[in-house]
Amino acid sequence: MKLKTRTPFEAALDTFLTAIVPIEETEVTPIREARGRVVAHQIIAQRDEPNYRRAAMDGYAVVADDTLGASEHSPIVLGVGNSVRRGVASRVHTGSKIPDQADSVVMVEDTERLGDVVEVRAHVHPFENVGLKGEDIGRGDVVVEPGHQLRPADIGLLSSLEVRDVTVYRRPDVAIIPTGEELVEKGPLEGEVIETNGLITALLVEQWGARYRYRSIVTDARELIEAALLRDIDADLILTTGGTSVGIRDLVPEAVRKLGKLLVHGIAISPAKPTALGLVENTPVACLPGFPVACLVASYAFVKPAVYRLAHFDHTFERTVTGTLASKVMGKPGSRTYARVAIRRGRVEPVMTSKSGILPGSGILSSMAKADGFVIIPENVEGYDEGQQVEVVLFD
Amino acid sequence: MKLKTRTPFEAALDTFLTAIVPIEETEVTPIREARGRVVAHQIIAQRDEPNYRRAAMDGYAVVADDTLGASEHSPIVLGVGNSVRRGVASRVHTGSKIPDQADSVVMVEDTERLGDVVEVRAHVHPFENVGLKGEDIGRGDVVVEPGHQLRPADIGLLSSLEVRDVTVYRRPDVAIIPTGEELVEKGPLEGEVIETNGLITALLVEQWGARYRYRSIVTDARELIEAALLRDIDADLILTTGGTSVGIRDLVPEAVRKLGKLLVHGIAISPAKPTALGLVENTPVACLPGFPVACLVASYAFVKPAVYRLAHFDHTFERTVTGTLASKVMGKPGSRTYARVAIRRGRVEPVMTSKSGILPGSGILSSMAKADGFVIIPENVEGYDEGQQVEVVLFD
Repeated sequence: MKLKTRTPFEAALDTFLTAIVPIEETEVTPIREARGRVVAHQIIAQRDEPNYRRAAMDGYAVVADDTLGASEHSPIVLGVGNSVRRGVASRVHTGSKIPDQADSVVMVEDTERLGDVVEVRAHVHPFENVGLKGEDIGRGDVVVEPGHQLRPADIGLLSSLEVRDVTVYRRPDVAIIPTGEELVEKGPLEGEVIETNGLITALLVEQWGARYRYRSIVTDARELIEAALLRDIDADLILTTGGTSVGIRDLVPEAVRKLGKLLVHGIAISPAKPTALGLVENTPVACLPGFPVACLVASYAFVKPAVYRLAHFDHTFERTVTGTLASKVMGKPGSRTYARVAIRRGRVEPVMTSKSGILPGSGILSSMAKADGFVIIPENVEGYDEGQQVEVVLFD
Repeated sequence: MKLKTRTPFEAALDTFLTAIVPIEETEVTPIREARGRVVAHQIIAQRDEPNYRRAAMDGYAVVADDTLGASEHSPIVLGVGNSVRRGVASRVHTGSKIPDQADSVVMVEDTERLGDVVEVRAHVHPFENVGLKGEDIGRGDVVVEPGHQLRPADIGLLSSLEVRDVTVYRRPDVAIIPTGEELVEKGPLEGEVIETNGLITALLVEQWGARYRYRSIVTDARELIEAALLRDIDADLILTTGGTSVGIRDLVPEAVRKLGKLLVHGIAISPAKPTALGLVENTPVACLPGFPVACLVASYAFVKPAVYRLAHFDHTFERTVTGTLASKVMGKPGSRTYARVAIRRGRVEPVMTSKSGILPGSGILSSMAKADGFVIIPENVEGYDEGQQVEVVLFD
């Protein structure tokens, strides 16, 4: 009755991601509201930025030849005007337009204004301290490639080029279906538990860039689970929580198998072994375990990459914090293990999974609240020793 | 006329943060909308979680003594009922309530159901596979300490304890005042530039957990700048952009000095040296440079820690991505240098700052859009060599 096969983590993830097709539908959004969205079409600059030659320094715009031989001890005196010609300089500020005849800027620190004239005490070369028209972006330059996720600086750049709207990929719609006859939405009696796995998963997928449909609890009945899956067949991804362990209530993976295709059930990942991945019609379904910590681990391991793939987040990097282990952590042999840790004064401390130590740690939600993140121990690593440097994947 | 003093980065930041008082005002928010908010009061569990003894495995709840001596080859037969007593077991599922008289659970894998009876093929100890009432959280336990920033798992935990609202610190209000006579909101003529520094900073502070007031452009006039600062004196933090270089337009730090106290002007950080930090009445003010890249660097270096301090984000960790440098990067001697880099196929590549190489890189917004983040070179480090491992601070 045990899950007999345990698919290696990488193979399970690859299988799932291969079955997921990135969303091709797009929508137009105002540039200022586009943070975090992924651009669907190449964006080309329609004009030069800057649209004029600008001073790169505060100082005087000059004809460079006028400054030949100028030095601290042998200043050259120039007239001062609004336009520049041989013998006449013009005061300019960083970023301001340089008069037409000028070809360079003498820094203000190298000058002294004496009434109507200015003493120049350094010589400059043509183009020195001058930013050319179109130097930042030239008309016709590709500014943003498709698939780029917009950050504030990108929005600034596009705004500076008068791009007002951008075409971006639609956000993924994720349906979240909590299952379990012990679950209630509020007011639990003895033997009942408030639904939280679905709620946590919903908040996470939102943080990962998706929209969610947080569905009502479905009890452990085959036909109700099947109906719930079919109702959300138009979602981009369906997540269920609970009902994945092999037992008489192992209904959710069975429903996926019946309605579609069960790709993987039982994965060499700890905790979260009972995770199942599949398709109903063409909609990917991840069946997350009911133990809270296992559910969270499965979300990070499978849901986050799935949402990212749907959303075209192709160039995301896993950010980590490096620290020194305060005590040994061991992996579960043969499994990719997610050990919960807290970071205290720069030291990485494994989080106790339970007061008594009796329960499997994956049931203990409080351990998640105490932890700052995971240390991931790969299948082929036994564990990490006290004092070893490790990378911590922080919780989002 | 140069900025003669350059305060070391750490000293400048310490001075600024010391002048900033974290926000003490609180508000009550529904728990489900509290992601990212910082809890202001200790939260204590009002009940046990779970509120019953639960099965940690699928199987049969039993009196442990009944299983003494049971093994694969010598099974013990028990009756099956809804309640448990000596000689009678009851079917239970992971997470479900254990009948009162039972003290342990035999895993379903170690049993075989034969009609009205069950064969037990392993023996269990008292409490084996049983989660005690209150094992996750006990009534009276401290669940969340003040100052904790709520993540989805915390929201799940609090929801499971029927906490519906939480008292959190108010978000910081940040006023953003772009200055510069060359700036326009749209339709730039030759010599004009669309305002983007303020926009980028606004989007960043929002991402860092604050609300923003994105003010209209203020031209380079002393009295207008002073009026703009005074108008936002009720904000938690005022940011200005532009007008910080020493020159005749160096009006913003002067306005801060006149209206309040200029704490620092000129910092050993590259780019962003002209950054000024001060107070007007008791409101902290950061005067960010007008060069786009310098403005962004100053935002990361000073605004982000300031917002975090206001918001009580005391336990945030800088997440980085580690990679190998594709080519040498050099720091500016004596300055903390922020080198823009892109990550391509796991290699960290410095981003060219300009097409011609003439302009100081801090003017080039496009380099920000091409970059993934910064490599920070401390004051006392000359630079990093090709092939060296470096940590990249990704752009938010």
